[in-house]
Amino acid sequence: MTDFYEPTERTTPTRSRERAAYDRALVHSILDETYVCHLGFVRDGAPVVLPTLYARAGDRLYVHGSTGSRPLRTAGTDTEAPGLPVCLTVTHVDGLVLARSAFHHSINYRSVVVHGTAHQVTDPEERRTALDALVDHVVPGRSSDSRPANAKELAATAVLRLDLEEVSAKIRTGGPDDDPEDAALPHWTGVAPVRKGYGTPIPADDLDPSVALPACLSAI
Amino acid sequence: MTDFYEPTERTTPTRSRERAAYDRALVHSILDETYVCHLGFVRDGAPVVLPTLYARAGDRLYVHGSTGSRPLRTAGTDTEAPGLPVCLTVTHVDGLVLARSAFHHSINYRSVVVHGTAHQVTDPEERRTALDALVDHVVPGRSSDSRPANAKELAATAVLRLDLEEVSAKIRTGGPDDDPEDAALPHWTGVAPVRKGYGTPIPADDLDPSVALPACLSAI
Repeated sequence: MTDFYEPTERTTPTRSRERAAYDRALVHSILDETYVCHLGFVRDGAPVVLPTLYARAGDRLYVHGSTGSRPLRTAGTDTEAPGLPVCLTVTHVDGLVLARSAFHHSINYRSVVVHGTAHQVTDPEERRTALDALVDHVVPGRSSDSRPANAKELAATAVLRLDLEEVSAKIRTGGPDDDPEDAALPHWTGVAPVRKGYGTPIPADDLDPSVALPACLSAI
Repeated sequence: MTDFYEPTERTTPTRSRERAAYDRALVHSILDETYVCHLGFVRDGAPVVLPTLYARAGDRLYVHGSTGSRPLRTAGTDTEAPGLPVCLTVTHVDGLVLARSAFHHSINYRSVVVHGTAHQVTDPEERRTALDALVDHVVPGRSSDSRPANAKELAATAVLRLDLEEVSAKIRTGGPDDDPEDAALPHWTGVAPVRKGYGTPIPADDLDPSVALPACLSAI
């Protein structure tokens, strides 16, 4: 395995090529920093984009959903099914870039776009590993601090696998790129960094007050 | 104009129907709270999902980009062009829902999915209004505190319009939905609220120190 994903025609941008990256470790770090992706697929010839949770295990992504949901039904349950062509995109917004000119306003961001075909996971062991990964990707360690899925829950849950093969990252960092002739304009220019985090956890109404906050929540 | 978007077959979810909403004011409030959407379109039969800025003006959304970018070229520049079928999705992650069972873990979120056909805006007045809206949607009031686009910049920028007609919101709020028989399990359960905000603005290297932070930045 090389350190880079091989660029393809559709992972090579037509513009701002300097922002594109194929470094495997960089792609993984962007994917691992959040847990909600936007999953695109084609239905009746038209595009559909839905937010959904995902997790990464090596060079494989997993998403899950009800066995009744449209993308999961479309992917087919048979191991021989052709699968579902998808585009899975993950985006971090890191800052607002205020330039002196309206035109050069921008966003600092890191995104990953994965093209491929999603297949339903049928192997029981891989399904369980994927479901644990989906919980742990949101709150590290939580899968071992909750009741595992029972047979009925497992039967109601479909898991899709998407291999990381045709992948690119796109990144913008740094300050504004104003034109030199705008340097004397009187407008403030710079970056407003985006901050993300979590507030104080809110216990469920029926939680026994003697149950302590789990260590995994202090890790997020 | 009614207070609700008319549900269609593709804006009616196949499951969790209680989470779907069509209230116009609610949809607008979700759209107005952020500025990055995920825009899906079909290219060579396969889905593509790209993050991009958007703005709302009434019941119309605008996105913009280089005239050389793929979705904007595909949409066509002619007012008679058939346009580009798109799905534009906006998602807020509001909290992590930790249940006692792995299965009932969830995310509190608010999302809007817009189906429709995007058309290039050719009217100069509407183009300028849209570009101002795109700046002001990120930092309210900033379009009047920066140099407006010149003719060359306007010529390099394409604007797409997407009417809000086939639209739905989907919302999950509140605590975990554990099964009653899990109530005595020893796992912590509740919600970790997601907090978003901005850090201290970082002036550009070449900013004259006498230029004060604009009021619009304190409004975000």
